[in-house]
Amino acid sequence: MSRLDSAIRRLQAQRSCLDWAVGQIAGRPGPVLELGLGNGRTYDHLRDRLPGREIFVFERQVAAHPDCIPDDAHLFLGDFRDSLPAAAATVAAPARIGGLAVMAHCDIGSGDAALTAEIAAFVGPALAPLGPRRRGGRGPAPADPWLPAGCLAGRRYTKRR
Amino acid sequence: MSRLDSAIRRLQAQRSCLDWAVGQIAGRPGPVLELGLGNGRTYDHLRDRLPGREIFVFERQVAAHPDCIPDDAHLFLGDFRDSLPAAAATVAAPARIGGLAVMAHCDIGSGDAALTAEIAAFVGPALAPLGPRRRGGRGPAPADPWLPAGCLAGRRYTKRR
Repeated sequence: MSRLDSAIRRLQAQRSCLDWAVGQIAGRPGPVLELGLGNGRTYDHLRDRLPGREIFVFERQVAAHPDCIPDDAHLFLGDFRDSLPAAAATVAAPARIGGLAVMAHCDIGSGDAALTAEIAAFVGPALAPLGPRRRGGRGPAPADPWLPAGCLAGRRYTKRR
Repeated sequence: MSRLDSAIRRLQAQRSCLDWAVGQIAGRPGPVLELGLGNGRTYDHLRDRLPGREIFVFERQVAAHPDCIPDDAHLFLGDFRDSLPAAAATVAAPARIGGLAVMAHCDIGSGDAALTAEIAAFVGPALAPLGPRRRGGRGPAPADPWLPAGCLAGRRYTKRR
């Protein structure tokens, strides 16, 4: 498999996961969180698939395509480790993000496995106060991680609650 | 269509064109030219699809993934406008590239339409001395541009001779 094949597969898997998640939140209110803006491609995808849904972006330093940069009201600048707790504190008061988030897309991996693991370990608990409470009475929690067909295990993770 | 959709479509179209071209040269000897190395993704694809085939790369400044950088004997560094005529001169003497090229992949477009047009106008004639003579007796030349299904017109061009 060439790097071109691999890039196509990676982006297709990314799209499959996002589209799956978009389907999961259909009919459920709440904003969406995008952790890591990058070039803005997945932000644009969420915007395209979720018209009218508020999307809040967390990004250390914006370097996206000019068409894919949220307005200041939807952008939390800075390191996740500062901005996520700050956003959670805001939500606890009058909610800047307009309620508890219904979905978070966390594109937080990099070539540095140790750093990725560190960020992932931080992000899960840090997101908890921003997201919905675990819904009870609907049967057991789905097995995690769940992945759409064609996604490589260990590259992407989905989590429902 | 989101930028993610668009990126997937673009890479799939790129792969379709390359795989089509690879099929076209099956059984025909000669090296392959890659104009523009970029991150090395299409170079890696050609290498994967054409085992044993020599591939010569023309690149102004190498910034590819370390695994996707050709050795010095297969790399023509510098601006196309210098390196292509220089390679042609070499080919006219004892051939550095081992014979006339059977295929050239020219990834020469950029966001700057005027510059792209200028480079494209230069590259066609500059490639001519490096490629095979027009084969006669095989019927009329195929209509150009030919594109695999799913490719957008005006983004990619194929040329056979």
